[in-house]
Amino acid sequence: MAITILRLGHRIFRDQRITTHCGLTARALGAKEMYYTGEHDLGMEQSLEKAAAAWGGHFRVRYLEAPGPFLRTFHGKVVHLTAYGLPFQGKLAQLRRARSLLVIVGGEKVPPEIYQRADWNLAVGSQPHSEVAALGIVLYELTGRRFPARFTRAKLRIVPQARGKRMEQPRSSGPAPARGKARL
Amino acid sequence: MAITILRLGHRIFRDQRITTHCGLTARALGAKEMYYTGEHDLGMEQSLEKAAAAWGGHFRVRYLEAPGPFLRTFHGKVVHLTAYGLPFQGKLAQLRRARSLLVIVGGEKVPPEIYQRADWNLAVGSQPHSEVAALGIVLYELTGRRFPARFTRAKLRIVPQARGKRMEQPRSSGPAPARGKARL
Repeated sequence: MAITILRLGHRIFRDQRITTHCGLTARALGAKEMYYTGEHDLGMEQSLEKAAAAWGGHFRVRYLEAPGPFLRTFHGKVVHLTAYGLPFQGKLAQLRRARSLLVIVGGEKVPPEIYQRADWNLAVGSQPHSEVAALGIVLYELTGRRFPARFTRAKLRIVPQARGKRMEQPRSSGPAPARGKARL
Repeated sequence: MAITILRLGHRIFRDQRITTHCGLTARALGAKEMYYTGEHDLGMEQSLEKAAAAWGGHFRVRYLEAPGPFLRTFHGKVVHLTAYGLPFQGKLAQLRRARSLLVIVGGEKVPPEIYQRADWNLAVGSQPHSEVAALGIVLYELTGRRFPARFTRAKLRIVPQARGKRMEQPRSSGPAPARGKARL
């Protein structure tokens, strides 16, 4: 399944870290790209591109002036995450059948067209909380509660430890020798 | 299981929304309190208290000058979420056996004492992403992938909808008549 994220209504001052966290979470859970509307934020884009360059994979982030044209041409199913929606767990089986899935996470005010356009408006708990956590939980379920094991072209890789921190440079990334054995 | 959150190294300017999202996520997934260190942030505290007052439950947030004294007297198990740790899924069964569990989420720099003090240093995917998403996914698993159905003393409650937004005031919250039937 190809998963794309659409983050609505980004505001540079208020949302920079939240949107960055959405992007990092999406990437870590296997999404391939994130589009966003609102304010064009080169700093946030660079921060996500930098992470992708260091840690590997093909995640990319793209700005949209408005969601309408993109939504009209998107081929696939569309799920909008909102605390007002139906419980997401009841729809997981249907979501998992999509070949291409767009996951929309809102900003402060989501236009009514989004609720109409979405194939599903789904809630991750019917309480106000966080689009980052909601996105994380839904992607976690969509990936079968597994994390992608490998990110191609990674310059850095974490070697899991019971205590402390350990990183290595994977062999494929260049002439620097790998330190230790990957266990990811 | 009683779940407490400890958020380390909060910075008002940079982390206000991230820490608020951690608190909201913790509350929505049944945690009872969040402690935090770093900068004392009354705005963030008020924002979380306001949410708890409106949406119910007993979630509270408390500032700590330093984590040491709190950690020395905490009775229960301690899990520290870090991308450098062991995969969390291998330890879930042990975590679920705790009667009282402290979940630590870090800030920019986590002191080595935290890695030492924690019963487990666990990663939610061995990639850098978001403490909000990591916390959400771990709490989601700890609650058996269910969300608390009821929050006591709620003034507002969402009535899940396929499209659009609907809220009601639960009967128990006061003299205002309930609108519609709760389906939470």
